[in-house]
Amino acid sequence: MRRSQRIAAITKWLVERPHHVFSLTDFSQQFAAAKSTLSEDLAVIRQTFSELGMGKIQTIAGAAGGVRYVPDLHSTELLRRIEKLCQKLAEPQRVLPGGFIYLNDLSACPTSLGEIGEIFASPFWERNPQYVVTVETSGIPIALMTARSLNIPLVVVRRISRLTEGPVLTMNYVSGSTKRVETMSLSRRDLPTKSRVLIVDDFMKAGGTLRGLVDLMAEFECEVVGKGVLIETAEPAKKLVTDYLSFIRLTNVDESDLQVLVEPADWIKESIPQL
Amino acid sequence: MRRSQRIAAITKWLVERPHHVFSLTDFSQQFAAAKSTLSEDLAVIRQTFSELGMGKIQTIAGAAGGVRYVPDLHSTELLRRIEKLCQKLAEPQRVLPGGFIYLNDLSACPTSLGEIGEIFASPFWERNPQYVVTVETSGIPIALMTARSLNIPLVVVRRISRLTEGPVLTMNYVSGSTKRVETMSLSRRDLPTKSRVLIVDDFMKAGGTLRGLVDLMAEFECEVVGKGVLIETAEPAKKLVTDYLSFIRLTNVDESDLQVLVEPADWIKESIPQL
Repeated sequence: MRRSQRIAAITKWLVERPHHVFSLTDFSQQFAAAKSTLSEDLAVIRQTFSELGMGKIQTIAGAAGGVRYVPDLHSTELLRRIEKLCQKLAEPQRVLPGGFIYLNDLSACPTSLGEIGEIFASPFWERNPQYVVTVETSGIPIALMTARSLNIPLVVVRRISRLTEGPVLTMNYVSGSTKRVETMSLSRRDLPTKSRVLIVDDFMKAGGTLRGLVDLMAEFECEVVGKGVLIETAEPAKKLVTDYLSFIRLTNVDESDLQVLVEPADWIKESIPQL
Repeated sequence: MRRSQRIAAITKWLVERPHHVFSLTDFSQQFAAAKSTLSEDLAVIRQTFSELGMGKIQTIAGAAGGVRYVPDLHSTELLRRIEKLCQKLAEPQRVLPGGFIYLNDLSACPTSLGEIGEIFASPFWERNPQYVVTVETSGIPIALMTARSLNIPLVVVRRISRLTEGPVLTMNYVSGSTKRVETMSLSRRDLPTKSRVLIVDDFMKAGGTLRGLVDLMAEFECEVVGKGVLIETAEPAKKLVTDYLSFIRLTNVDESDLQVLVEPADWIKESIPQL
């Protein structure tokens, strides 16, 4: 195969499995090419991705070494994507009676979800989580695409446990906004104890659910290395969790004017280098 | 940019959005390159993907034309993936008390889910579905990765409707195996009427849930262009739905011997060209 052909094949493999470390030996056998030749191929891919802001190609040295694709977004690209989401969220037809907003379509489009997965992966990948944890149902698509961007498994905590899960750990918690008692449960098999986990959810008001997930992780003796929510409401200002990262802040939904006030979180705006 | 660099960038875009039609004009502006040059670049990618069985690069003629990546699996690759899944399913530690089997890990690994998404997309993409429809919870990861492979939105039918979904259509149905009355509901906004839908689920016994989904689609005046389940049980032999496609057949779970008997569906074995 020619260089351009090897580059097409290697790019496909790398992009389809972000964060997976491919060994140069495997590539070398696949293409019957010398490692030095493959290093040159990878240099072309690295330079192209870097020039076009398409993420990083990283070389890992040592016996377990190789090369991997890291979808790490520039802060300007992160802000661009969040602003695009904010525009979508501000559409007046989203406003539902009672001041709720319709969000189902956010977790419907695979392309948009892929972008959101990279948004979540960017600030958290260096903390080396081993599992992405979310609670059913609406957070699953976002959490799965985050898990895909990080190349780690997804763990879904259930509201109702099922017969087909084996022994489960069930926990009651108090919802932060409605003050009702809710239940969550997780199969013992789904998550090994002592794991490093990243908690992901789509929406947070008072943070009761996120707090429940943190407590559940403690029962599994897992270390929570990050907590991320896509959208948090400005009210109530006091949340039941600390040290979380939110990407979008929802300040107001006006039912009479059909106005939704949303903006990127401060830390994202502040991360943009000033000119 | 040199040819090898353009090929790296174009491959990434194509692979990240299967079935999306990219216009040559866009590529041409991006790289300041002539369309004839880009056609040569695409020919290299097409030939490489074809030689390595990595899916198809299709050119679409006309005003809305361009180029797209179609992850269409060879029948031998389809069988290889299904056999790999069958091996995983046959692991004795999956057997749970009562003859159930633990399946949660199947919808945990993003790489494996990506492969399953391509498995579902392969026999159905030519029927041009506009939406992938599933019911919460365990089918969501498979359905999302199928939607990703097809570049169409995912619609999740709920067991319990929520306040934040707007008007919903709720339907009762009888579970095929337990004969209990169950409920499913779908927000009116989630799925436009008259759409072409592909129904996807992870597991089917008698087919009551699938039948419920088919009936719900009729209420939305949608055309069901395909029904796919990853695993179906051999018993009961009589199912409540017809014209579905299953990929894996589960014939027996022996609780005392810890044996799980699974095999690829007949149509997959028969699709392999005989030598």
